[in-house]
Amino acid sequence: MVLNFEEIKKRYDSKVLSRRNEDLYINVQPIQRGGVLTPAAQKILVEWGDGYSICDNCLKGDIRSIENPPVNEFIKDLSKFMGIYDVVFTESCRRAKQIAMAVIKEKFPDRNILLIDANAHYSTFLAAEWNNLEVKEVPNNGYPEFRVELEKYAEKIDEIEDKTGNLPLAALLTHVDYSYGNFNEAQIVSNICKKRGVPLILNCAYSVGTLPVNANELGADFITASGHKSMGSSGPIGILGFSEEYEDIITKRSKLKGDITGKTFGHKLCYMLGCPGVYGAPLMTLMASFPYIVERTKPENAKIEGEKAEYFIKNAERIEGIKMLGTRPKVYPLINLETPAFEKIAENHPRKGFFLREEFKSRGIVGMAPGISKKLEISTYGLTWEQVYYLTDTLLDIARKYNLKIN
Amino acid sequence: MVLNFEEIKKRYDSKVLSRRNEDLYINVQPIQRGGVLTPAAQKILVEWGDGYSICDNCLKGDIRSIENPPVNEFIKDLSKFMGIYDVVFTESCRRAKQIAMAVIKEKFPDRNILLIDANAHYSTFLAAEWNNLEVKEVPNNGYPEFRVELEKYAEKIDEIEDKTGNLPLAALLTHVDYSYGNFNEAQIVSNICKKRGVPLILNCAYSVGTLPVNANELGADFITASGHKSMGSSGPIGILGFSEEYEDIITKRSKLKGDITGKTFGHKLCYMLGCPGVYGAPLMTLMASFPYIVERTKPENAKIEGEKAEYFIKNAERIEGIKMLGTRPKVYPLINLETPAFEKIAENHPRKGFFLREEFKSRGIVGMAPGISKKLEISTYGLTWEQVYYLTDTLLDIARKYNLKIN
Repeated sequence: MVLNFEEIKKRYDSKVLSRRNEDLYINVQPIQRGGVLTPAAQKILVEWGDGYSICDNCLKGDIRSIENPPVNEFIKDLSKFMGIYDVVFTESCRRAKQIAMAVIKEKFPDRNILLIDANAHYSTFLAAEWNNLEVKEVPNNGYPEFRVELEKYAEKIDEIEDKTGNLPLAALLTHVDYSYGNFNEAQIVSNICKKRGVPLILNCAYSVGTLPVNANELGADFITASGHKSMGSSGPIGILGFSEEYEDIITKRSKLKGDITGKTFGHKLCYMLGCPGVYGAPLMTLMASFPYIVERTKPENAKIEGEKAEYFIKNAERIEGIKMLGTRPKVYPLINLETPAFEKIAENHPRKGFFLREEFKSRGIVGMAPGISKKLEISTYGLTWEQVYYLTDTLLDIARKYNLKIN
Repeated sequence: MVLNFEEIKKRYDSKVLSRRNEDLYINVQPIQRGGVLTPAAQKILVEWGDGYSICDNCLKGDIRSIENPPVNEFIKDLSKFMGIYDVVFTESCRRAKQIAMAVIKEKFPDRNILLIDANAHYSTFLAAEWNNLEVKEVPNNGYPEFRVELEKYAEKIDEIEDKTGNLPLAALLTHVDYSYGNFNEAQIVSNICKKRGVPLILNCAYSVGTLPVNANELGADFITASGHKSMGSSGPIGILGFSEEYEDIITKRSKLKGDITGKTFGHKLCYMLGCPGVYGAPLMTLMASFPYIVERTKPENAKIEGEKAEYFIKNAERIEGIKMLGTRPKVYPLINLETPAFEKIAENHPRKGFFLREEFKSRGIVGMAPGISKKLEISTYGLTWEQVYYLTDTLLDIARKYNLKIN
């Protein structure tokens, strides 16, 4: 052992590991906003922080059966909330997608192509790759809207069937995408899929927990969600919602048997490797946040988040050259602005592309991508109106400092 | 939406979700002891509790490259600590096993059998099943020691090769098992495996973080560990350590390409689905606990944990019929006692098998399996000597209450 305690202690001291910015700064990083803990979750986090903390309460060897705390009830409430037959927990939304694809593959072993939208997240690619699937894309309409041409799912399905003799394994639609925050009307795709017998996976990493989402009304066979991205959980925790049709496959149980001991574990779920890795804080903070998630996703409350984004965008676009990319009006407040004037400033700035992030940081706002000045990708989700005003004023202030024209 | 905020709020109130026992009780559940947060980790947990909290600091799209907090340095320190070429994070030790098997399968696609010890954990079965592997067991020597007959890995490998024409995909050895807490001398197995060209996966869910473990010295090709089980992390977080030979496969990167957008994600690791789900609290609490883990696993400190177990066992065996199952002396303090006298009491007790757990609970000790009186499975890991004395006195006190003979 060459590691020295005193030396190692210094290297991993709480001052070194400190999340310095969080007390003082407003964080507008798009993947951060929906995962901010609610006060209820913060309280619970400390109590359940120990590893495996919830497993004490597991009397039947199945996380879904824990009665106290009421995990079993929570699963029912969560299913109701998401408008889906049932849910299982996974370690992440990407894991939920990976499992959904594997499950469908069991049902349709001859289908090898996943049809995705052009705005799909990288983890959709990785989940498909794990399952040895090819991906085919449904296009978006390009600059500046990048709106997915949802009706084209029909021709793409037909094209795949014509070319390969098989339907695509599934269609996957990103409900709200990571790049432009575009919101997609899932019913358009589900109507197409239903007619052709193609299962629909709806990736709701950004939408479940921030927008009203009902899988049944939207016609999704599978719905994937992220506790740490959008549901106020410390995470990691993903949710895989599924329709009754796939229950037997998703909940299939272990059949392997030890040849000497005869040991079998027939109550353990294969796709969860027994239990998903959400054993304590991830699940408990999700449960603690849940009532607030239910409240904030009511249409009248979710709408306000779109309005905050619109306020910011309207003012941002007063600055010369700034233009929002994506569809309007904003349903989800993930905002992508092109900022050519900032890019020009960066060319001659001693800090180059980093200047923009640093200007924001010096004004108490963090979460901008480092080194990038030609665009600004942020989210106003869950900011107070005061914070939205301050963010807006800060952007205008930086523009003024560099003598940009403001209308 | 049929969920009502006020109603839901009551159902998931912090009082309902409260982990009631933790302030007042001593928890001796075997899977709980090694995951108790260190004070340093408790401090860090609150700061990094938000979902995705660490991703702000990820400037290169790869969790392994984060410099501040020093994740990149931590990976080097952790590799050194475990005596292995390199490590990747996973969501759990079971996931690490699953990935190790898949990786070896890429190298040896014709091998379909996993050779495991008779004391292997259920998650080893599940990980094998995910990879469509059969399992074959190496026996233990049965009651009362259940010692794995390590030297028999040799004949089992030969037997598999003779029968199937192929070597087993890998040998997996459970370093310390979940049932008896038996510690296995891994070198015996690795010597056998090396001679026959069979990779060795050493499952160290209980040992890395509690005992000195050096994969290189032990001759393991893969080593799997659990942050939430044995390394003072809130988790879930697993660790997969691997030898240089497998680096290219474990770290293979995404190759899928969008047919319309041309999008590729060539920097994302396939087996981690891009990034493993350990994005904030799991990894940060692991890092905060690390110096204390290094300290507690020094031979002179780890030894004391065995001594605490021996003290308890020695006294427990003074009670009529109580007998420890497993090997002596204890290296790891997971203790399995058969308690036939308690089983007899349960027959006529109004609370049946539950009486034993309840007797302990009324004396401030929790973590015993519910409804079971014929055996007692506990761990004294990390208890203070005072707690060990109290636990011992409590067991004797319960025995006295029911007039059992004590030598």
